[in-house]
Amino acid sequence: MTLSRIELALEAAVGAAEGKGCPPELAKALRYAVFSGGARVRPRLCVAVAAACGDDRPGFADATAASVELLHCASLVHDDMPCFDNASLRRAKPTVHVMFGEPVAMLVGDGLIVLAFETIARAAVRCGATERLARVIKIVARGVGAPNGLVAGQAWESEPVIDVDRYHEAKTGALFVAATMAGAAAAGADPTPWRALGAHLGAAYQIADDLLDALSSSEDAGKPVGQDRAHDRPSAVHALGVDGALARLRAQIEAAVAAVPDCAGAEDLRDLVRLQAARLAPKSLARTAA
Amino acid sequence: MTLSRIELALEAAVGAAEGKGCPPELAKALRYAVFSGGARVRPRLCVAVAAACGDDRPGFADATAASVELLHCASLVHDDMPCFDNASLRRAKPTVHVMFGEPVAMLVGDGLIVLAFETIARAAVRCGATERLARVIKIVARGVGAPNGLVAGQAWESEPVIDVDRYHEAKTGALFVAATMAGAAAAGADPTPWRALGAHLGAAYQIADDLLDALSSSEDAGKPVGQDRAHDRPSAVHALGVDGALARLRAQIEAAVAAVPDCAGAEDLRDLVRLQAARLAPKSLARTAA
Repeated sequence: MTLSRIELALEAAVGAAEGKGCPPELAKALRYAVFSGGARVRPRLCVAVAAACGDDRPGFADATAASVELLHCASLVHDDMPCFDNASLRRAKPTVHVMFGEPVAMLVGDGLIVLAFETIARAAVRCGATERLARVIKIVARGVGAPNGLVAGQAWESEPVIDVDRYHEAKTGALFVAATMAGAAAAGADPTPWRALGAHLGAAYQIADDLLDALSSSEDAGKPVGQDRAHDRPSAVHALGVDGALARLRAQIEAAVAAVPDCAGAEDLRDLVRLQAARLAPKSLARTAA
Repeated sequence: MTLSRIELALEAAVGAAEGKGCPPELAKALRYAVFSGGARVRPRLCVAVAAACGDDRPGFADATAASVELLHCASLVHDDMPCFDNASLRRAKPTVHVMFGEPVAMLVGDGLIVLAFETIARAAVRCGATERLARVIKIVARGVGAPNGLVAGQAWESEPVIDVDRYHEAKTGALFVAATMAGAAAAGADPTPWRALGAHLGAAYQIADDLLDALSSSEDAGKPVGQDRAHDRPSAVHALGVDGALARLRAQIEAAVAAVPDCAGAEDLRDLVRLQAARLAPKSLARTAA
């Protein structure tokens, strides 16, 4: 149900971008980047928070969730390019630059960032939510821009001295925080109490990703593994060991459940967080992590 | 006067992005990309249109103009990278990727796109213009995204068959159209009558750029020249010859002057268009073009 809302909103957004006049290769590449089997973790979280807050403008919440996913997809396309991870596989398929070339991949990332903000603005008008627009855009922009969003997180990888906590908070946590806070703001609720839920889930997700990178086969992961060690990036597994990282993962998930603010849909949301959390650990560790 | 308004607005925007927590190299590179001697053609046009429309929310118009310039800067940074033009000079200085490396250059472009939309949203709240926010964001996004904005324009360079008119309209014209229309919308005016002015100025600017690329020395231009021929890109000079291109340039400028809609500041704006137009032709051709 939530997933079909998100897919429809993404379809509407990408459909507008690939409309009349679009260069055909760019249109194909935009679609390829967005519809390639992503789990839609962040937009589901965004819609779930909007639902917990009453969801009085569902179309605006859906567009907000779609924009968070478009920004996530943009970051994956750019992150896979040769000057970053030089990854040829993503979700078991060739990456965008492998399929369409580096120039188009660069433009797909740029275009998806623009499309994210355009999507929110269009929906605000369509859904009678223009008075919420500025707040949602500021939250989403903070999650992806500088000084503390996703772009800043990736930029830490190019610094001579890395601030590991800021790195993880910005690279992974910030977009989860944007997802929860923007979900609340899209539904007309105060976003501030929703920050902690996003932060804990982002931290959990980062640890799970470190475990996946360190322990999975490339086939399980659907992308190259061992990248943290190969690029000498900080990793919870290297810092804490596998057992330590698993303990940290469980603690963050418990903290996330506890961080759900009191609201009409709080219990449903806590159940959803527990359910999603069970899927976070790498398949080979599922029994240990459960 | 206009220029200092724009520089202050850009300073405020970049100042926010390089704030507490920003990776130091990213902060330096963001500033380098925005403050490196650009002529600020598009934001001046945006502010001039807002002024002609009454300029009742000057802070919002300034932020809108700054966002147009941030997006222009982002496109230059990405366009200069090795997978596009592989340019090592821009405005007679080393390009961002030469100074800071390709990963940081990619992130500077991404971060400036995000910052552009964040800047408009912040100013809308600060200046009491939230009811104009959706319209301005949609106009600006249309100028830079897909299907017909700057990103689409650059993507035409990767297509096996190029639609030359669409290519120029999207790559250069669209952001000029965004500048005029967003200037009007930021001042609370109907943006539609302002489209033609932007389109003609964008076309004039594109022809002037083709002339510059074909005829100037690299020193005059402050960037590598001969790029259109080197990359086999369409050019007014190749299509029409130098005299034909100059005639087309003059015709577009006359059309731009004639396209200024009736409004309180129309005469001032027409004078400004004429003044700016005189600077468009390459220095070596200034006497011929005048």
